[in-house]
Amino acid sequence: MTLSASPRPQSGSKQIQGQTKPTVVIIGCGFGGLEAAKALSGADVEIIVIDRTNHHLFQPLLYQVATAGLTAPAIAGPIRHILRKQIARGNLTVLMGEVTSIDSASRCVVLDGGEHLHYDHLILAAGATHSYFGRDEWAKYAPGLKTLGDAFTIRRRVLTAFEQAERETDPDKREPWLTFAVVGAGPTGVEMAGTLAEIAQHTLSAEFRRIDSRVARVILLEGAPRVLGTFTEDLSKRAKEQLEMLGAEVLAGAKVTNITAFGIHYDLSEPQPDGSNKVSSHFVASRTVVWAAGVAGSPLGRSLAKSTGCQLDRAGRVIVKPDLTIEGHPNIYVVGDLASAQSYLHPDKPTAVPGVSPSAKQMGRKSAFNIMRRMKGLDTQAFRYFDYGSMATIGKRAAVAMLDLPWGNKKLKFSGFPAWLFWLFVHVYFLIGFRNRALVLMDWAWAYFSSQRHARVFPDPHALEPNAVIVHRDPPATPPVP
Amino acid sequence: MTLSASPRPQSGSKQIQGQTKPTVVIIGCGFGGLEAAKALSGADVEIIVIDRTNHHLFQPLLYQVATAGLTAPAIAGPIRHILRKQIARGNLTVLMGEVTSIDSASRCVVLDGGEHLHYDHLILAAGATHSYFGRDEWAKYAPGLKTLGDAFTIRRRVLTAFEQAERETDPDKREPWLTFAVVGAGPTGVEMAGTLAEIAQHTLSAEFRRIDSRVARVILLEGAPRVLGTFTEDLSKRAKEQLEMLGAEVLAGAKVTNITAFGIHYDLSEPQPDGSNKVSSHFVASRTVVWAAGVAGSPLGRSLAKSTGCQLDRAGRVIVKPDLTIEGHPNIYVVGDLASAQSYLHPDKPTAVPGVSPSAKQMGRKSAFNIMRRMKGLDTQAFRYFDYGSMATIGKRAAVAMLDLPWGNKKLKFSGFPAWLFWLFVHVYFLIGFRNRALVLMDWAWAYFSSQRHARVFPDPHALEPNAVIVHRDPPATPPVP
Repeated sequence: MTLSASPRPQSGSKQIQGQTKPTVVIIGCGFGGLEAAKALSGADVEIIVIDRTNHHLFQPLLYQVATAGLTAPAIAGPIRHILRKQIARGNLTVLMGEVTSIDSASRCVVLDGGEHLHYDHLILAAGATHSYFGRDEWAKYAPGLKTLGDAFTIRRRVLTAFEQAERETDPDKREPWLTFAVVGAGPTGVEMAGTLAEIAQHTLSAEFRRIDSRVARVILLEGAPRVLGTFTEDLSKRAKEQLEMLGAEVLAGAKVTNITAFGIHYDLSEPQPDGSNKVSSHFVASRTVVWAAGVAGSPLGRSLAKSTGCQLDRAGRVIVKPDLTIEGHPNIYVVGDLASAQSYLHPDKPTAVPGVSPSAKQMGRKSAFNIMRRMKGLDTQAFRYFDYGSMATIGKRAAVAMLDLPWGNKKLKFSGFPAWLFWLFVHVYFLIGFRNRALVLMDWAWAYFSSQRHARVFPDPHALEPNAVIVHRDPPATPPVP
Repeated sequence: MTLSASPRPQSGSKQIQGQTKPTVVIIGCGFGGLEAAKALSGADVEIIVIDRTNHHLFQPLLYQVATAGLTAPAIAGPIRHILRKQIARGNLTVLMGEVTSIDSASRCVVLDGGEHLHYDHLILAAGATHSYFGRDEWAKYAPGLKTLGDAFTIRRRVLTAFEQAERETDPDKREPWLTFAVVGAGPTGVEMAGTLAEIAQHTLSAEFRRIDSRVARVILLEGAPRVLGTFTEDLSKRAKEQLEMLGAEVLAGAKVTNITAFGIHYDLSEPQPDGSNKVSSHFVASRTVVWAAGVAGSPLGRSLAKSTGCQLDRAGRVIVKPDLTIEGHPNIYVVGDLASAQSYLHPDKPTAVPGVSPSAKQMGRKSAFNIMRRMKGLDTQAFRYFDYGSMATIGKRAAVAMLDLPWGNKKLKFSGFPAWLFWLFVHVYFLIGFRNRALVLMDWAWAYFSSQRHARVFPDPHALEPNAVIVHRDPPATPPVP
């Protein structure tokens, strides 16, 4: 069965003066896919946007949904609502579904229902998923944070851990419920650890009877020698200090060796005065672990490689040409977190493009732009990434920022309250829709003055995850030997 | 293992001048349980509130979460946050857990983890659940609406149905995705049908390419001869008219005989001019069915009956004495939807108490009051239900209301816009917390002027309900013979 883009007759139908409009299929409506769809708004093409969810997600604030500070609709909008003007104009179709494979020979993508969708140009923006470095069995003990479903899982587990601690009368069994571990100290890990510490220290501090939530431990484990490795060393140091002020413990040089229902095993590497490293093995008992470490390209990268022979990097990302297409397929673009791309801002010295939302947006726009150029018979252009800087928030009044100044070769670095305020306004500014901006500002103002987090509810845990729930009072196996 | 109420030393400890405070255990923190806990705030008792969720839910607005008009945190608040002052004062403990049984001989309730909690007084406020009249196999095709989990399930199914219709190219297969059936025309069924019709007619009307959401059918099936059977006949008629104006179809006298993945089978009973009834069998193909018909007491009613020999009514509700205790157990109260109670407002002419939130609240307060009277050596009092009237909303500017006037024996009846406005302010007024009131008013104002529903997102369906998902493209069985 082959679907045409628009069986319902529309003003902008496929036949224009006897000519068939080319179809651009966009897989994934994250930052890259959405920008590409918008950039093609005026183009004489038929666009089909496919996503496995019904929403575009503002992922930089997803940790706030996980930590009960924001509701899901505040940071997620229905894709077809965001793109409703293009839909009404007859330029674009939104389909909710999962692409199971790409067949470049017949220029088709295959959906989970078996439908084949023809494309003339393909923009693959399927993003990334968690990588447990080959230890997929850790996933059920240490959920990552990529989707709304992930955020709800983490919210439920974190809040349930405090509830279980209140029920538990045996102090030895209670402690693991009050120990929270975050693996990986990139921006997401740092945000999670800082916010979890705030929840224990302030949000919940007066609401329990048998436990004191303030004794809860929040441990951030990072394999590298410092947190926020992509920032400068002094900002890393400031971030660590701010995390510790909020009440989190930072363990740098801690390589996780195993995660079970009981907790985390890790090897701690400590530099010695003689320049050598002392490595020791440890175990911390924790019932709530969040994974913020590895990232891998979507499995669709492998499907594309199988169909086209394109190369993947070690993280499963598709290695793209300067114009974001793949070798031998000038009509297939890969953008966003799934792309292993180079920036040709200085053509003689290309640099690797980081997997952040501004680069995804810029790649999305560039792919659209290159499709339009090709339709006009022009050459495609190389991707140039404009890096405006990096930011990470840590908690209330705590953040670090590193901005590229447009003049000279200087970086503007700042931290603490100014960085936090800057982070806050930048994130509100880039949220989709006026309503969400107003809502998030209101929620944050409320949270700031009350120390409360208003989204502290989750559905009956018995009703959810019938297979995957691992919140039971005693883990099924015997306790591990540390 | 027996838990004491407060292992953590507190100002309000159990030992006061050599005397042990009696322990009141409240099972369930809906309207009945919450009111009981609050009413015992000043009493010299130790209160333990147990709920299987972490939140108190404002159930009258749950259908708005199911239909994407409100977020879950707008109508649900963490129980321990609502009761934080009593927790801080050392009068109350909140435990999240499921009570599996009640042992009246040893005065204990047993939790899912195996803990035994001692009580001196017990208030059972565990509420009601759906009843499929012995056809539990319908549950997976026709979810009911009692919990946040239910609301999310219905939200996801309703929005997914439109998405599937947009994907489906075969018109015969598309129609069942665009047919929504609601079983039961009590207030919840009427609200669901009216809101679903609005979603199809207005919210989504411009956001699809291949389908016209306005052709969607919303069918409300009711076994009785009219909708809103507890209202007067003229208000029933007004409600039916308003539903039809919004675009819903009302089928009164329709008795559901089977529900499958393909749709609903029902017998339609039509009164004939000669006074007889003509009964005919029908089938409507629908992929989205909502159950708003039967209600049954929580299974804990059966556990109590097993332990105490108390009587249950046909719906599994516990038949209580005038003071809301059960026969032979003056320290066990049953309140709210789980109680089959009589009101002694006119002691010589007791009337059955309806299962609505005001009666649950009043019963909760009365049980607390009777516990305090018994502690003072006084007799308990009979429950008197003050009925201020009934309301049901249908859609934008559409509702019916029936108020008991305090003078004479008159009822004030009104419908349409005034009833809708009245309904709106009453519901906002009774919401828990100032923040939620402001939020809901803002959300409604937004929805009123934009026809938009801001909570139109749901997590990746692949990540949820791994067992129960029944949204697949083709049902597993062969189509039924109508």
